[in-house]
Amino acid sequence: MPHSPDELRALVEDHLDGLELWPQLHGQAESVRYSLVVGGKRVRPVICCAVAEAAGAAPQAALPAASALELVHTFSLVHDDLPALDDDEERRGQPSTWKQFGEAVGILAGDALLAEAFRLACAYETPHVARELAQATLGMIGGQYLDVTGTAPDEQTLHRLKTGCLFAASVGLALWAADIPEGEQGSWRAFGDELGLLFQIVDDILDGDGYVVTHGLDGARRLADEAAGRARARLAEVDADTSVLREIVDGLAVRTA
Amino acid sequence: MPHSPDELRALVEDHLDGLELWPQLHGQAESVRYSLVVGGKRVRPVICCAVAEAAGAAPQAALPAASALELVHTFSLVHDDLPALDDDEERRGQPSTWKQFGEAVGILAGDALLAEAFRLACAYETPHVARELAQATLGMIGGQYLDVTGTAPDEQTLHRLKTGCLFAASVGLALWAADIPEGEQGSWRAFGDELGLLFQIVDDILDGDGYVVTHGLDGARRLADEAAGRARARLAEVDADTSVLREIVDGLAVRTA
Repeated sequence: MPHSPDELRALVEDHLDGLELWPQLHGQAESVRYSLVVGGKRVRPVICCAVAEAAGAAPQAALPAASALELVHTFSLVHDDLPALDDDEERRGQPSTWKQFGEAVGILAGDALLAEAFRLACAYETPHVARELAQATLGMIGGQYLDVTGTAPDEQTLHRLKTGCLFAASVGLALWAADIPEGEQGSWRAFGDELGLLFQIVDDILDGDGYVVTHGLDGARRLADEAAGRARARLAEVDADTSVLREIVDGLAVRTA
Repeated sequence: MPHSPDELRALVEDHLDGLELWPQLHGQAESVRYSLVVGGKRVRPVICCAVAEAAGAAPQAALPAASALELVHTFSLVHDDLPALDDDEERRGQPSTWKQFGEAVGILAGDALLAEAFRLACAYETPHVARELAQATLGMIGGQYLDVTGTAPDEQTLHRLKTGCLFAASVGLALWAADIPEGEQGSWRAFGDELGLLFQIVDDILDGDGYVVTHGLDGARRLADEAAGRARARLAEVDADTSVLREIVDGLAVRTA
């Protein structure tokens, strides 16, 4: 029996809790831990572990990659919250990192999260995991740039960068962690793309913006259902037990938070 | 004949000029390039290439690692200059990145430099280069934290982190790029530590702070000469043509800028 999403989430939380930050971070480690604890549903690392297990590896083998994804996601939130960007004083009902530790330490906390993420991603024998994480991070930063400067050519491009890149990497990193050769990654990667799109559309439905503005609530709902359908179809192409990933797709499609 | 420091610097400049930034950075690439061009003497990448060549590799083999070091160094300058940290509006006589592009894009420029650095460091077949770069970056960030919070136990610790880590990595990354087994890296690494110390003391002599405050000008000069002497002694332990590295040590010891 593969691990359920909740079991995978517990594995991820344990791994994050037990993460030994690089000792030379000194006191900077406190704000890094704070940022990680404030964090959220661990969607990306759970997907990463679930894909790795479906692809034939132990989910534990994907934990360094999974945690690295969560650190990059957290890095992006910590820097997004800064006064010069979104100027958010709260994150999930708690003071945002810069509000809690001051702006200078807030900036450094994001930097440290990013560097720790790469340290984790380099735990593997090959650089594939770290390489794809770097590419996804660059795409995410490019999306952030388009957002803060208001220069995105269209909303799809913006979301594919800001959200899609790291979602796609949640699948991609798992494939490398599970030693799936590049030539056999196609359906998996197409699944990752649909999953990112699904997550984004449902996000917009919950927030009443983005796809809801451009397509109306019913239109956005339909697009989400179509993306979920395509994600399930991609899973069906894979010769593996993808029941847990189907469960994750179903959960993302109907999530309310 | 090994390449001279000036020839190595030209190789590094060419590599940085020709660097193909990740396309998904979109417009964010402009501030990344700006930050790199404003940059400086390329001390770290030149050391990296010189060590690689002395260790038996083509200096070109070290260029991705060397450029990654320069990008991490530049990342640290771009974030240090931010209003919340040193609040510097100028860098080498030009507007600092945040002053030129605004604070939000300045923060993202540092982020992008760091992520690009790791993408470059992952160009190798093993993750050793990227792994050591991540560790050095974390040490540097830890030093930055001690500096902005005024919590450094002593000046040596502060400098070893803020300056020494990336200098040591300039040697360490070159050793991995040149495929020198870990067991044969000892003297090289001890050389890197002395080089970082030498650079820092001379920096303080030029700025009239740090070691000059604690040891007086003559005392600091003597400490610099001793570090240079130990660096040369470490080079003498290595069975290789280290003439270019000796030249670099001599140059760092008497530099005036």
